[in-house]
Amino acid sequence: MNKKKRVVLALGGNALGNTLPEQMAAVKITAKAIADLIEEGCEIVITHGNGPQVGMVNNAMIALTHENPKQPNTPLSVCVAMSQAYIGYDLQNALREELLNRNMPEIPVATMITQIRVDENDPAFQSPSKPIGEFVDAQQAKAMEEKYHYIMKEDSGRGYRRVVASPKPVEIIEIGTIRTMVDAGNLVIACGGGGIPVIRQGNHLKGASAVIDKDFASCLLAKELDADYLIILTAVEKAAIHFGTDKEQWLSDVSVEEANQYIQEGHFAAGSMLPKVQAATDFAASRPGRTALITLLEKSRDAIQGKTGTMFHA
Amino acid sequence: MNKKKRVVLALGGNALGNTLPEQMAAVKITAKAIADLIEEGCEIVITHGNGPQVGMVNNAMIALTHENPKQPNTPLSVCVAMSQAYIGYDLQNALREELLNRNMPEIPVATMITQIRVDENDPAFQSPSKPIGEFVDAQQAKAMEEKYHYIMKEDSGRGYRRVVASPKPVEIIEIGTIRTMVDAGNLVIACGGGGIPVIRQGNHLKGASAVIDKDFASCLLAKELDADYLIILTAVEKAAIHFGTDKEQWLSDVSVEEANQYIQEGHFAAGSMLPKVQAATDFAASRPGRTALITLLEKSRDAIQGKTGTMFHA
Repeated sequence: MNKKKRVVLALGGNALGNTLPEQMAAVKITAKAIADLIEEGCEIVITHGNGPQVGMVNNAMIALTHENPKQPNTPLSVCVAMSQAYIGYDLQNALREELLNRNMPEIPVATMITQIRVDENDPAFQSPSKPIGEFVDAQQAKAMEEKYHYIMKEDSGRGYRRVVASPKPVEIIEIGTIRTMVDAGNLVIACGGGGIPVIRQGNHLKGASAVIDKDFASCLLAKELDADYLIILTAVEKAAIHFGTDKEQWLSDVSVEEANQYIQEGHFAAGSMLPKVQAATDFAASRPGRTALITLLEKSRDAIQGKTGTMFHA
Repeated sequence: MNKKKRVVLALGGNALGNTLPEQMAAVKITAKAIADLIEEGCEIVITHGNGPQVGMVNNAMIALTHENPKQPNTPLSVCVAMSQAYIGYDLQNALREELLNRNMPEIPVATMITQIRVDENDPAFQSPSKPIGEFVDAQQAKAMEEKYHYIMKEDSGRGYRRVVASPKPVEIIEIGTIRTMVDAGNLVIACGGGGIPVIRQGNHLKGASAVIDKDFASCLLAKELDADYLIILTAVEKAAIHFGTDKEQWLSDVSVEEANQYIQEGHFAAGSMLPKVQAATDFAASRPGRTALITLLEKSRDAIQGKTGTMFHA
């Protein structure tokens, strides 16, 4: 390749693990896959999810109020911010180390605390659906509703969990700084956990009790940075239609029109493959020449060479 | 002023408060003082302490292990990282809002997760001295020593607290990115809480169980950015010799030689004014034309105009 391809790479849960020891092991493997892409001639910008991590931080903050009732409750937006540092610190370190191991010391790695504006009238606020944190019993759930005004929902017979809204990302507040850093050759980790969700009140930004879907946030970032590729990493090598049935068919190459038809036909699971396919389709449709890929972390180099993964194009 | 003066501004505890509600109120006032300095023609880079905040995060992570014994312990370096986001998110928001209120939308505000390398042979690791987190009784202290290998010390009859090492900062890992962002006109928050302390093991950086003094970290950052001023904000308008005695004398203007003499004579309290005076003196001595100031947040504009504060110069 002559000109570097700009790639927004959205890391899923398996790129990070569920606990700190898992994270420290996972980011080493993740860093190798990312360094492979850089060697392949890509300019990478990294985003990531934070489901287990923001749940853990939220639980820790609640545990602190149990031990010290004077301790004020910590809003979810602050927990998202903390999860960006919790993940970014390990991830940037693993990337720095892998780049040094490959004699690429000229690429600085940096984590940006990123806020993303959502619309306070987003219908998602009326129907919180994203479960976070631990399972509790009915009595604990009632206590948490009363004490913290959380919305608690019974989850498939496994107990109660807090559910929060997952509104659409509208504007990346720190996009100017992110663009400056990427243009200057930094390997940037941004919009972690879908970004810290905020709503606008005049010049003020108020934290929202929400978690933005990281695939939608990654799509917005990729558009704003005029990326060539949006790569969404997940637990399968390709997306499929008729998934798990006799008619299962792995998708290699789909047009925006085909993808929209498959979405309409209900082929993709809500909260799982559906947002990934929606984000990929949205990015591919946004400008000619933009390509989205859904694949496995360890297949990302093959995918950008056109050898595997599901490719979405206009 | 024609050419902008580059200022590294080190915020103390009173610029941030001790709890989240206090922080959200304090950062509004802090943002006004910083915007005043920008209007005065200064280019500002912000650092801050994290004593109460990293203690709170550390306590929350321990509280979580009480509720869920399977939860792995969270190292202090990770707690420092989380405190950078906990503070940076509110601070960058308050700054953004104040700049918009003053019609200065062209200055982007950003928080950088920053690691600072320390020397693993720093003698501070042999004599941990910096107390963090809550007071506990002797029995709890013993349990924490056994469970987490913490070093617990009795503190002035008030109970036991965890003590950690406070080694000297040697190298700011993300200095290249910070310089890029500052040079591009960003209002950057970096090296929060003295930076995430790490030691080098080949290409690997390993988190250290330590908290770096934020004044020393700020001095290093100011040197690395070739700042004109290092301003260390604290709870008094000026430093004093013979503090709290009949011979008390507020200092307005001190040379490096005078400052070193006062330090030798033991005029400044360890863990309080001493590191501030040491950092200020170190910066002033590092290159002709570099000036350090110690003053109150609300006097920082007056101080840079030479009207108050304690000024340190070569």
